[in-house]
Amino acid sequence: MAGTGRNLDLAAGIAAGDRRALARGITLVESGRADHRTEALALLEALKAAGQPAAGREALRIGLSGTPGVGKSTFIESFGLMLVAQGMRVAVLAVDPSSARSGGSILGDKTRMERLSREPRAFIRPSPSQAQLGGVARRTREAVALCEAAGFDVVLIETVGVGQSETVVSELCDIFVLLLAPAGGDELQGVKRGIMEMADLILVNKADGALKPAAMRTMADYAGALGLLRRRAQDPAGYPCAMSVSAETGDGLASAWEKMQALVAWRREGGHWQGRRAGQAQHWFEEEVRQGLLAVLAHEPARGQLARFGDAVAQGLMTPEVAAARMLDTLG
Amino acid sequence: MAGTGRNLDLAAGIAAGDRRALARGITLVESGRADHRTEALALLEALKAAGQPAAGREALRIGLSGTPGVGKSTFIESFGLMLVAQGMRVAVLAVDPSSARSGGSILGDKTRMERLSREPRAFIRPSPSQAQLGGVARRTREAVALCEAAGFDVVLIETVGVGQSETVVSELCDIFVLLLAPAGGDELQGVKRGIMEMADLILVNKADGALKPAAMRTMADYAGALGLLRRRAQDPAGYPCAMSVSAETGDGLASAWEKMQALVAWRREGGHWQGRRAGQAQHWFEEEVRQGLLAVLAHEPARGQLARFGDAVAQGLMTPEVAAARMLDTLG
Repeated sequence: MAGTGRNLDLAAGIAAGDRRALARGITLVESGRADHRTEALALLEALKAAGQPAAGREALRIGLSGTPGVGKSTFIESFGLMLVAQGMRVAVLAVDPSSARSGGSILGDKTRMERLSREPRAFIRPSPSQAQLGGVARRTREAVALCEAAGFDVVLIETVGVGQSETVVSELCDIFVLLLAPAGGDELQGVKRGIMEMADLILVNKADGALKPAAMRTMADYAGALGLLRRRAQDPAGYPCAMSVSAETGDGLASAWEKMQALVAWRREGGHWQGRRAGQAQHWFEEEVRQGLLAVLAHEPARGQLARFGDAVAQGLMTPEVAAARMLDTLG
Repeated sequence: MAGTGRNLDLAAGIAAGDRRALARGITLVESGRADHRTEALALLEALKAAGQPAAGREALRIGLSGTPGVGKSTFIESFGLMLVAQGMRVAVLAVDPSSARSGGSILGDKTRMERLSREPRAFIRPSPSQAQLGGVARRTREAVALCEAAGFDVVLIETVGVGQSETVVSELCDIFVLLLAPAGGDELQGVKRGIMEMADLILVNKADGALKPAAMRTMADYAGALGLLRRRAQDPAGYPCAMSVSAETGDGLASAWEKMQALVAWRREGGHWQGRRAGQAQHWFEEEVRQGLLAVLAHEPARGQLARFGDAVAQGLMTPEVAAARMLDTLG
């Protein structure tokens, strides 16, 4: 009961846009403790009961991906400050499965996005440490829901690298932006088509100073490559598109934002916006089912079997495949 | 019965080092068809029955990771050709979960490692298309087992990007090598500590021509960063280490190979080699159990429920969490 009261207070604080309440709410959904999990679900229920944003007033969820070194933090800082200057409220979340083992990047998040983090209309949340990819996805999804309930206009979901985390983010966002650095033409092959197919905008950063010609060439290369992909049903002509920007000077950021808004408007009109969110909800339902099926492994008798068969496999007495088949037989 | 006969022929061909038989065997373990799966398991059993390599004669499994643009293909070509020139047989496999959606990189694998692919003592296998990460892991593991049975001295397991696929590869290999490109000092933060903690060797490539000074600085930066990490029990002094190489000129490749061999010798003596392989077998056993538990979703009644609840979630009638809880109740 006390928990319910606390959750109502927390829900009210979040709905009122209180950043501290939001931070506490995200800490709650990130927690692995069972009692915290119960509270977290109650909080999400309370916020849902308090009402969804009206159609057309939902937060815009922008997924942002790029390998290390492309200038993601500088981009988020400049882009976020531009939106804040236009009166918008901006939240930044990170999905970083590679921090699962050690808890984040070497330098951490404190030195990043210093100016944006001081803005009262901005909220920056580093990636949680010690989380599995599945857990990261659920928590980020719930953190996004909290940011939406807190009335943010834009939620930027940042991810690192080229891999599974992009798939997670693409299932969380309305628009997916791939940030690249200027490169030689032979490096084009490095970007996998799967990532390119997720991207709505490809932004080639660092289009300033000595790198500007290389950035323009890279942009042209990717524009050409995008032209080879089949147009998606939810895209108007000219999307996905490649543009050059400079997070350092701010060049191109306003144009990129216009491109994003035009895409959003088009998708809303055609019903693709709602369709995408529906598909994402379905995806996360299936993911929750999978996680639920695997929960049996945390309890007896499966837990003990996992240990005993695991020992036999480690000692070379059984192959992984045979041991798994036997254990599944006894569980089945 | 016919299947068994074919498998014995295939097993004999693989054990004799026939590359065509090996390629056919890998195609078999990569297949998703149920009858192929049965044949694949029979093949693996037949090869196991034919005998494991004696201790000290197992293939050396080297995991190689690096983001696009660091020169992975050129490195593998030069490094592989060096080993081949020393009389070794070298297999190259790829783990690429990002190709799951679209089936590989834009330019594909045909233009890569052209010289190495012509070597009779080398075997190059591109990543399978249309595979889930879990499936990629199992198939790569089985492909590694086939390469070992075929008598390869070194199996290079290549992966792209910074993310979940590194974790898969680190659970498949004896030595993990991270390949980097020269970069500015502020880009150091981009490499996650989790990846650095997996790495046994960090090789800064492109240490040639105009990039050499930058490569040396980057190497020194990473050597410093590695010094901040706690030494692992399975490592001798001086590991993990950072070195500079040039895949283009070949500089540093022999030293890198010496460093790898010294590490392997140390780990064999201390029992860490065997311990690591035992831990990996245990990990894959648990992964097989997880995949087995999820297999229920492919059949009725779960399959139909997944569709019906999924529809309700997509229409906004239920939240993903509530729908998952109800479905799990009926399954349980």
